[in-house]
Amino acid sequence: MTEKMNALVKEERGPGLALREVDIPSYGRDEVLIRVLAASICGTDYHIYSWDEALRDRVQPPLIAGHEFVGEIASMGDAVTGFQEGDLVTAETHIVCETCAQCRMNQRHVCINTEIIGVDIDGCFAEYIALPAVNLWPTDRDLDLGVASSQEPLGNAVHTALAGPVAGARIAVTGCGPIGLMSIPVLKQCGARQVIATEVNPYRIALAEKVGADAVLDAANEDVLARVHELTGGEGVDGVLEMSGNPAAIDQACKMVRMGGRVSLLGLPSESQVTLNLGDDVVFKGIDLQGIVGRRMWETWRQMEGLLAGGLDVSDIITHQLPMDEFMEGMHLMESGECGKVVLIP
Amino acid sequence: MTEKMNALVKEERGPGLALREVDIPSYGRDEVLIRVLAASICGTDYHIYSWDEALRDRVQPPLIAGHEFVGEIASMGDAVTGFQEGDLVTAETHIVCETCAQCRMNQRHVCINTEIIGVDIDGCFAEYIALPAVNLWPTDRDLDLGVASSQEPLGNAVHTALAGPVAGARIAVTGCGPIGLMSIPVLKQCGARQVIATEVNPYRIALAEKVGADAVLDAANEDVLARVHELTGGEGVDGVLEMSGNPAAIDQACKMVRMGGRVSLLGLPSESQVTLNLGDDVVFKGIDLQGIVGRRMWETWRQMEGLLAGGLDVSDIITHQLPMDEFMEGMHLMESGECGKVVLIP
Amino acid sequence: MTEKMNALVKEERGPGLALREVDIPSYGRDEVLIRVLAASICGTDYHIYSWDEALRDRVQPPLIAGHEFVGEIASMGDAVTGFQEGDLVTAETHIVCETCAQCRMNQRHVCINTEIIGVDIDGCFAEYIALPAVNLWPTDRDLDLGVASSQEPLGNAVHTALAGPVAGARIAVTGCGPIGLMSIPVLKQCGARQVIATEVNPYRIALAEKVGADAVLDAANEDVLARVHELTGGEGVDGVLEMSGNPAAIDQACKMVRMGGRVSLLGLPSESQVTLNLGDDVVFKGIDLQGIVGRRMWETWRQMEGLLAGGLDVSDIITHQLPMDEFMEGMHLMESGECGKVVLIP
Amino acid sequence: MTEKMNALVKEERGPGLALREVDIPSYGRDEVLIRVLAASICGTDYHIYSWDEALRDRVQPPLIAGHEFVGEIASMGDAVTGFQEGDLVTAETHIVCETCAQCRMNQRHVCINTEIIGVDIDGCFAEYIALPAVNLWPTDRDLDLGVASSQEPLGNAVHTALAGPVAGARIAVTGCGPIGLMSIPVLKQCGARQVIATEVNPYRIALAEKVGADAVLDAANEDVLARVHELTGGEGVDGVLEMSGNPAAIDQACKMVRMGGRVSLLGLPSESQVTLNLGDDVVFKGIDLQGIVGRRMWETWRQMEGLLAGGLDVSDIITHQLPMDEFMEGMHLMESGECGKVVLIP
Repeated sequence: MTEKMNALVKEERGPGLALREVDIPSYGRDEVLIRVLAASICGTDYHIYSWDEALRDRVQPPLIAGHEFVGEIASMGDAVTGFQEGDLVTAETHIVCETCAQCRMNQRHVCINTEIIGVDIDGCFAEYIALPAVNLWPTDRDLDLGVASSQEPLGNAVHTALAGPVAGARIAVTGCGPIGLMSIPVLKQCGARQVIATEVNPYRIALAEKVGADAVLDAANEDVLARVHELTGGEGVDGVLEMSGNPAAIDQACKMVRMGGRVSLLGLPSESQVTLNLGDDVVFKGIDLQGIVGRRMWETWRQMEGLLAGGLDVSDIITHQLPMDEFMEGMHLMESGECGKVVLIP
Repeated sequence: MTEKMNALVKEERGPGLALREVDIPSYGRDEVLIRVLAASICGTDYHIYSWDEALRDRVQPPLIAGHEFVGEIASMGDAVTGFQEGDLVTAETHIVCETCAQCRMNQRHVCINTEIIGVDIDGCFAEYIALPAVNLWPTDRDLDLGVASSQEPLGNAVHTALAGPVAGARIAVTGCGPIGLMSIPVLKQCGARQVIATEVNPYRIALAEKVGADAVLDAANEDVLARVHELTGGEGVDGVLEMSGNPAAIDQACKMVRMGGRVSLLGLPSESQVTLNLGDDVVFKGIDLQGIVGRRMWETWRQMEGLLAGGLDVSDIITHQLPMDEFMEGMHLMESGECGKVVLIP
Repeated sequence: MTEKMNALVKEERGPGLALREVDIPSYGRDEVLIRVLAASICGTDYHIYSWDEALRDRVQPPLIAGHEFVGEIASMGDAVTGFQEGDLVTAETHIVCETCAQCRMNQRHVCINTEIIGVDIDGCFAEYIALPAVNLWPTDRDLDLGVASSQEPLGNAVHTALAGPVAGARIAVTGCGPIGLMSIPVLKQCGARQVIATEVNPYRIALAEKVGADAVLDAANEDVLARVHELTGGEGVDGVLEMSGNPAAIDQACKMVRMGGRVSLLGLPSESQVTLNLGDDVVFKGIDLQGIVGRRMWETWRQMEGLLAGGLDVSDIITHQLPMDEFMEGMHLMESGECGKVVLIP
Repeated sequence: MTEKMNALVKEERGPGLALREVDIPSYGRDEVLIRVLAASICGTDYHIYSWDEALRDRVQPPLIAGHEFVGEIASMGDAVTGFQEGDLVTAETHIVCETCAQCRMNQRHVCINTEIIGVDIDGCFAEYIALPAVNLWPTDRDLDLGVASSQEPLGNAVHTALAGPVAGARIAVTGCGPIGLMSIPVLKQCGARQVIATEVNPYRIALAEKVGADAVLDAANEDVLARVHELTGGEGVDGVLEMSGNPAAIDQACKMVRMGGRVSLLGLPSESQVTLNLGDDVVFKGIDLQGIVGRRMWETWRQMEGLLAGGLDVSDIITHQLPMDEFMEGMHLMESGECGKVVLIP
């Protein structure tokens, strides 16, 4: 008889998630079964919960949601090496093919056959999750559990920040959701000269200041371009980490960056068509507009591990911790924006 | 009494250029006077001639037009070293400040104080031109005079091509004006696996085939994306050199490039606002959209010199050579697109 | 009853190899069995054959030698995907762990747990070889069989050549064994301005000229440094591919490279202690002395595939083809240096 | 009548320096005259003072020594732009040609025609120094005067540190003279995971700990390789900044770095011939042995400016400040090693 566990399940094509008792997943020879200790809520989870346009063409219910977590290895397949039962681990959420052109050119983060945990296959909002061993990343027991659970989005922040020069550079972060917030201490840890954040939500403006931004601009009430000009002695920033997906912010990002700088786009645009003054703001300025997705496998994970070991502290961004059965409150927090990262405890 | 020379002068704010007798320019301590042997016509010159929107807010008549040339040093200022009278030279057309943030970070090609020959200061459609010695580039006497005169745009092609990996890569060139055409043999010389060009003008389609493109797609009559898919075994190209400035071509460039690839934008968009599916085609694909302008000073010049010395042959792209007083015919050729590079002999 | 095959076996700790009938290897779930069509002899194989110091502390007889080959998939394990029986393949010869720090930082070529085919585990001088599917590289049927069999050392040449700038650069190749020879057309294909080779063996000097070196210096009878100075207009070369392992050549490499250039060391030094004027020739010149080993997995393979598809031709370097039972003649050719690459047909 | 100033002059080919009254230097159209506020003593100055082998073949007395300084612009030539009298400045000490191959490839730090202040031309151990305006670097008045005077060696530390990845990386610094010491806070500021320093002098061991090294190994009394192994969980360091020039330390650097890592050599070897196990420690490990000299012009200066503005603090390394006429005490401190950076006030 298969053992049972609690899980948050997308049962049908419509809004909502349901706490259900389901089978503990089976696992293959190269896979491990992990007991989830903490799982954090991502914007992706909120999209799946609210069933908005973002992902509803991709998700096939029934599906256990969730992809950010930390847990302990409960048991594992015969062919798994390098891990032991009881090991504390988190995981890369992209399961890649290792055979496409991208995987063969060290660009696994854009594997054309990627399957994502909690989107394409069952996820971690559950007591247990089964995963290929190759996707695991060992995690230090000294780490705060909420931080440990949030390494996947922290990896997004590290990937975006380190996609261009940071040491001694002026960097703007447009949009202070959890990943934008995380990028602020990452940038400071890596030697940024100045970190200028923009945000509209007062709660997140306050949090951006708390975690070390040199300046936080209220994008709803300040002339952002004029302020960046002033704060940088007229030179503009060397780079922008675009974390909002807001078309107006993307346009501003291209205008606030200095000639020859870079704009690293992690935020998924909220509209399918984005209009830019590509001639004046990109070609003529000689800037680099980078699409960023996922985390480099495994360079980003290694960098993140090193930054955390070297003192990177993002614990202030883990603002809420809830029992998993109170996930609705978590979703409401996500909707309001009155939170950093929200962590669920199964 | 100052000596006189013939020159093509923009006399007033309106269409046209006039062949006039003007003073031979004076030159400063750090400058040289060059006797122009050949000068080639750039799209920029055509914009100034036709007085369309592209540059008419920037150009201040009277102005001698032209910036691409080759010539011999006729005389030089006291402080000039490293050159001698009689030396064959061409020149970087951007005169830069060496003190702005960009110049101080080895990004002179996007110096914020750039002055361009033939746009901001008197140019080379004349028997003589005076220039700062630091802008000169020594030129091999074995080079075809038309090629020697066209090194500045060839440098654009080299800069764009080498802005990403080429050796062993599949590269598309969208738009086969003179710089697009030049990029084809540059890419082949640098080890591209496959060069796929797109163009609408039959004359230039034929020329693209002649100079070595592995495939030339007729963008007006073929399904470019389907053909690129087929020609690349479904993988897409590793990079695109966007040379047309056509908004539809820019959109296609982002769609034909593989995930993780690069799109290098040299063509100035023909419209100020360009609309892209930034989410699906840039962010999610993890591509790099690079604005390219000018030539790296002086890495690009050195690379070009080496490529020419190593056998790079772009002479087929120099399709017309005319006496300078027949410049009107050159402008008509530019208008028709029935040409590669057109060279004027003063 | 297990089927049998012929193989060249190192039977005991001493000189020689023996042609023996042995079991066709078994293979696991993630592995394939390949019918070897051609196998080429590497210096490593010669070291194992002659039982000199180079490898005799590492090799544990009995061992089937050989690691360079091309073959067809005869059968495969249940878990193998992406390949079919009959596919033509060659293989990366380093079997890596995917879990060490190097593997996790995209430096699989220096995995600390590397096992090498034909050195640490049974090799390809046999009718069949069993290998992990992940190590296979699909091979184009249009390729000459000898070239197809020699992709692993060609990958060394590509890795070394592309470890620094090549397009428009002057590059020296010190030592024209098979990999040195291969690097010459690789460099030319990638746009080198000038390729200067050095060698002592007259047969290989002639072969270096045949495959496209712009100059081949007789290191035994010419003043190499003076000639490089002269051939480069006094500037020195931009890079050196050191393929000889000769301590004197390594010292010369550091002297012939220009300030700020690179010396890429692939040749394993013939002596354990090498003395350099590190102050004058490395520190003060600001050069980069790179240790190169193996092939980047899988970037180098992809580049090589693209270069071959783009017209790279190294077939002149495959100088000899022998039935496998005449391997002794192959070893004698290796000893004499009167050969390029020697290929055995099982 | 020319005005006079005090200066420390190398009067003849032998040990010593003399405080003399000499003419205030004249300056050209592109040059500035700077009133020196502080000048710091470099190992180079000590070599000139003690007249050991290091530089005595290069220096031509009479010569004013010194190259590290900060000062105010007293007056300037007609052609100087971008600066004003009274501006606080320091200077790049390499005066480069801008025309050699290196200068043309953005490698001005290895210009083959470099002239060094205080070595090839009169230096800054004086009340005034004349310099080309292009060599100046504007300096923030908030900076400690001793730090401001020491930006040139700090630039060496920044150049060496940022010659490879630092964010999240384990880095060793072998040798804690002033530049080695400076590199410790530079590395920490740029996000190093762990900084392990080695040194023999107890004064400097204490100083290395004070400025933030995670571990300082006593190279005279500890088994450095065993300790690095232990401190890095057996992985070795990702990079080594070799600051000692000690041949044994260089050998150890190649052994303590992980496979695929980098060893950046700034320390000039104390012996002309250095013996390494190049095969095992460089080629086979696939490491990068980088010669580092000077500072990238001007990328390093810009990075340093940004790091200082972002909070980099090296003031603890400025251990002594003396009136210029007490320079003998400074030289004795240099000899003893019981100092960090020693600053002279004219």
